[in-house]
Amino acid sequence: MRLATRRNGRRDGELWVVSPDGSSGLPGGDLAPTMQAALDDWKQIEPYLRGLSERLEDSPSQGIALAPEDLLAPLPRAYEWVDGSAYINHIVLVRKARGAEPPETLRSDPLVYQGGSGIMLGPRQDIPLPDPGWGLDFESELVVILDDTPRGCSPTTGLAHVKLITLCNDITFRNLIPPELAKGFGFFQSKPATAFAPFAITPDELGESWHEGRVHLPLHSSLNGEQTGSPEAGPEMHFGFGELIAHITRTRGFTAGTLLGSGTVSNEDRSRGVSCLAECRMREIIEQGAPSTEFMKVGDRIQIEMRDSEGRDLFGQIDQRVVTP
Amino acid sequence: MRLATRRNGRRDGELWVVSPDGSSGLPGGDLAPTMQAALDDWKQIEPYLRGLSERLEDSPSQGIALAPEDLLAPLPRAYEWVDGSAYINHIVLVRKARGAEPPETLRSDPLVYQGGSGIMLGPRQDIPLPDPGWGLDFESELVVILDDTPRGCSPTTGLAHVKLITLCNDITFRNLIPPELAKGFGFFQSKPATAFAPFAITPDELGESWHEGRVHLPLHSSLNGEQTGSPEAGPEMHFGFGELIAHITRTRGFTAGTLLGSGTVSNEDRSRGVSCLAECRMREIIEQGAPSTEFMKVGDRIQIEMRDSEGRDLFGQIDQRVVTP
Repeated sequence: MRLATRRNGRRDGELWVVSPDGSSGLPGGDLAPTMQAALDDWKQIEPYLRGLSERLEDSPSQGIALAPEDLLAPLPRAYEWVDGSAYINHIVLVRKARGAEPPETLRSDPLVYQGGSGIMLGPRQDIPLPDPGWGLDFESELVVILDDTPRGCSPTTGLAHVKLITLCNDITFRNLIPPELAKGFGFFQSKPATAFAPFAITPDELGESWHEGRVHLPLHSSLNGEQTGSPEAGPEMHFGFGELIAHITRTRGFTAGTLLGSGTVSNEDRSRGVSCLAECRMREIIEQGAPSTEFMKVGDRIQIEMRDSEGRDLFGQIDQRVVTP
Repeated sequence: MRLATRRNGRRDGELWVVSPDGSSGLPGGDLAPTMQAALDDWKQIEPYLRGLSERLEDSPSQGIALAPEDLLAPLPRAYEWVDGSAYINHIVLVRKARGAEPPETLRSDPLVYQGGSGIMLGPRQDIPLPDPGWGLDFESELVVILDDTPRGCSPTTGLAHVKLITLCNDITFRNLIPPELAKGFGFFQSKPATAFAPFAITPDELGESWHEGRVHLPLHSSLNGEQTGSPEAGPEMHFGFGELIAHITRTRGFTAGTLLGSGTVSNEDRSRGVSCLAECRMREIIEQGAPSTEFMKVGDRIQIEMRDSEGRDLFGQIDQRVVTP
């Protein structure tokens, strides 16, 4: 089942069930008016939404046309956004880029940060760049959406709380990170609003590509029409989503609708390319002494998508342009 | 005007307007069902709520009894919780306690961290302590609640977005902080759910005690019935809420209902006592070589409140007990 949030002039938009090809859908209506309402009461509402989904599959003509421009983030405002950094290759490269050592517990203790969740960007919403000197970068990631998740989950019990999966562009101002992290309290100004893919899908849509709490498919990113990378999201995700959930629930529980990110998808094999510019720049520094890739500038276009083994688009495309605010 | 959120079996509770003595109130009803709904549409809804407030003041007998046990946090789930650390004395002492230097930009660049906001504790909700070795501490703070706040506020334009003020207990597991901050991504496991005072009040309720984006009154904290401190919240708040809002809006905007904390209220004059145990322990380490104050344990009771110059209770009391979960 694929879900989306359609613009309707209200803060939370309205929940739609989306057809297999992503071009049409049916509104959740009074029973499931918003994505948050569905997640608040998932056990009761999921069967109803699956009914709508089957109707769309059986009688595609019943669907109402749905344009990506009309979609908001699956949760346009969310109660919590926790972003992991589960790809070791990304951590090592990006820390090198800012002259920092990877943490000693790199392989035993997951890295996560608490992100801002009050304003989330939709798949076609522009990225405002107030100051090109801030070093705008994209970061292509997988994201799971949880239902009510209690304190003290194991990786196995934690995974049972993954209700939906989507993609994000964890937009980052790279040049604001070093002074911010030097203060010791984590990211803040360096992380503006994050953008999300059009569709949030149930794990069963991924078939065998979803196993061990990882999505075993490549994630494609393109900048200005040229592919920057298509790293495999599965094998090098050192901590799966189950381990990340066990980590975040050590001392507290999470409310339905919590978003949990994988961190930037990254492979050691450099022929797979990159899911952010910071990794490119670091490789250039290592090889040439200085970066030749520039950060993003006004007018740039970033596209992020994932396809299944048959080439079917799974989450729709994040397709954003950088603009002067 | 004083507002509260009353338990009604739903996730967001229901909004109530509270009488001057805090003992009774009137529900916001269909026009203002929840605190979030009121903040989403503050300009339209505020006059209506003020009307209810005047009715309560003119005819106290119209109020319905309201017990603190029935109250949830003003926002039981919030879209964003940003906590500052604006009292220099607290930063210096607590960093000494963990052998860390204060940041070089201590007096020029505010410290804030992004907190978890999906589950907030009410004023009488217990504090679960799964492991006494985690070093449970309270932190008494002021909190402002914002309406829609755009990117790029100045301290002056920022202050205009402060719609409500309340108190919090920013509960902290001190012993989880050093390994967590060593990883470089800020707090996460060290910050379980934060607790809030019964009432959120409009700034005009503070009269002249609210000026320059600071609350010029002492904040009282008591542990097991003994006062730990009553530091003045105004003069030593190095960055006022206006400066904190300018800081957090540098790169992004915030949605209505965002919570912004002052950080632990702290005075250099040690006769004012403390708003957290870490400061006591640091002073003991400096003077005696080792801390003699223990962190909180199961059965402990923490009470936090603020009174105006005539002794009137402003926000109601945070009154929590530590329990085994």
